[in-house]
Amino acid sequence: MIHPVDERLASLGVTLPDAPTPAANYLPYILSGNQLLIAGQAAVVGGKHAFVGRLGAELSVADGRQATRLAAINVLAQVKAACHGDWNKLTRCLRICGYLNATPEFADHPQVLDGASDFLVAVLGDAGKHVRTVLGATSLRSRTAVVIDAVFEININISTCFK
Amino acid sequence: MIHPVDERLASLGVTLPDAPTPAANYLPYILSGNQLLIAGQAAVVGGKHAFVGRLGAELSVADGRQATRLAAINVLAQVKAACHGDWNKLTRCLRICGYLNATPEFADHPQVLDGASDFLVAVLGDAGKHVRTVLGATSLRSRTAVVIDAVFEININISTCFK
Amino acid sequence: MIHPVDERLASLGVTLPDAPTPAANYLPYILSGNQLLIAGQAAVVGGKHAFVGRLGAELSVADGRQATRLAAINVLAQVKAACHGDWNKLTRCLRICGYLNATPEFADHPQVLDGASDFLVAVLGDAGKHVRTVLGATSLRSRTAVVIDAVFEININISTCFK
Repeated sequence: MIHPVDERLASLGVTLPDAPTPAANYLPYILSGNQLLIAGQAAVVGGKHAFVGRLGAELSVADGRQATRLAAINVLAQVKAACHGDWNKLTRCLRICGYLNATPEFADHPQVLDGASDFLVAVLGDAGKHVRTVLGATSLRSRTAVVIDAVFEININISTCFK
Repeated sequence: MIHPVDERLASLGVTLPDAPTPAANYLPYILSGNQLLIAGQAAVVGGKHAFVGRLGAELSVADGRQATRLAAINVLAQVKAACHGDWNKLTRCLRICGYLNATPEFADHPQVLDGASDFLVAVLGDAGKHVRTVLGATSLRSRTAVVIDAVFEININISTCFK
Repeated sequence: MIHPVDERLASLGVTLPDAPTPAANYLPYILSGNQLLIAGQAAVVGGKHAFVGRLGAELSVADGRQATRLAAINVLAQVKAACHGDWNKLTRCLRICGYLNATPEFADHPQVLDGASDFLVAVLGDAGKHVRTVLGATSLRSRTAVVIDAVFEININISTCFK
């Protein structure tokens, strides 16, 4: 039987990549109690940054939306790895924070982060609804356009969890 | 009987507004275990940004203090909504993070975030004391001056909680 | 008997300072459940900012690495204070977030935050491995080079904990 999450990913035409390896000396995710913390993820596809540059300059709002969507796909790939592929272990997304490589004049941060928020709700349904914060960063690693980190809630009461 | 929190708000002359509606596809607050996470709040009054521009340029430290105070009022309005108006459900404020729309030369971030911290302690007493981080952002949504997000601790052991 | 953490600090030649006092109206750390939240720490040594200025301009990546290491030392000093000096109360580091005072062109954020991550792993071993996010800030308090905040996990099940 196909899990609704996999079904929705398929209907969106999204194949989750292997969870990206951290760029330095840290963990991609960590579980504490029922909180799953995800390290900052960029819009990396096949090991390469898909969007490089600044929103408000080289990059448009539409670029930014695609970038946060791709970053959210990598966030979800980390969640899947943490759950050993069992979506029943996931309760919901609690929070995302979006860091946008943006000019001082840029003002459309919410529209850009919607690329991530809309994706999470499309895939996880009500369980994808989260609180969030978005801000313009002066610069990000490798001049990437966006970074997103997140906190998810994990079901630690069902016996199949993290067995 | 008036709750001390309402009493202190009254003595400060502050009426909490209706909790602001999110500007995009996300939740204003979410409760997980005994942690209440609040989405980033700006200094929005009556649906309008009260302070627009950058600290160190168009805006002074005094403007910034007022802005973080107004953002903290909106944070507290979200907490009240989450508690269905019952302050007994609130244990304390754990953490705030302040994002300031600031110039590269700006250096008085703590004084600006004190507008929020002082307000929370004035209203909640010892329960308002929190850890915090403050940083300069390149830009914020709608060129608003400040955004604050927060984590509060909720009492989930009393039977009246979230009934 | 010397605790392995103190042993590793000694072999690194690091003496933890007294936990720095907050620069304004907030707490240096707060414990909620088994999460210990640490307020943003700068590379302050003996009450003075050791690195002032921007990465990519006045400061090099090597400067930045030293700065995040010093900030992580202050983070650990707060953890020690929270644990009343008993490292057995500490389970592990969950998350750090690094805010770098950087130019728009700066791109080596991971290498800079490694100064903190490497230090935490060197001192705490596997318990020092964490998730993290790093971003360029437009400006930071007192023009300091870096700020780091963190979440640690505390052992609240052993009877000696926070007695």
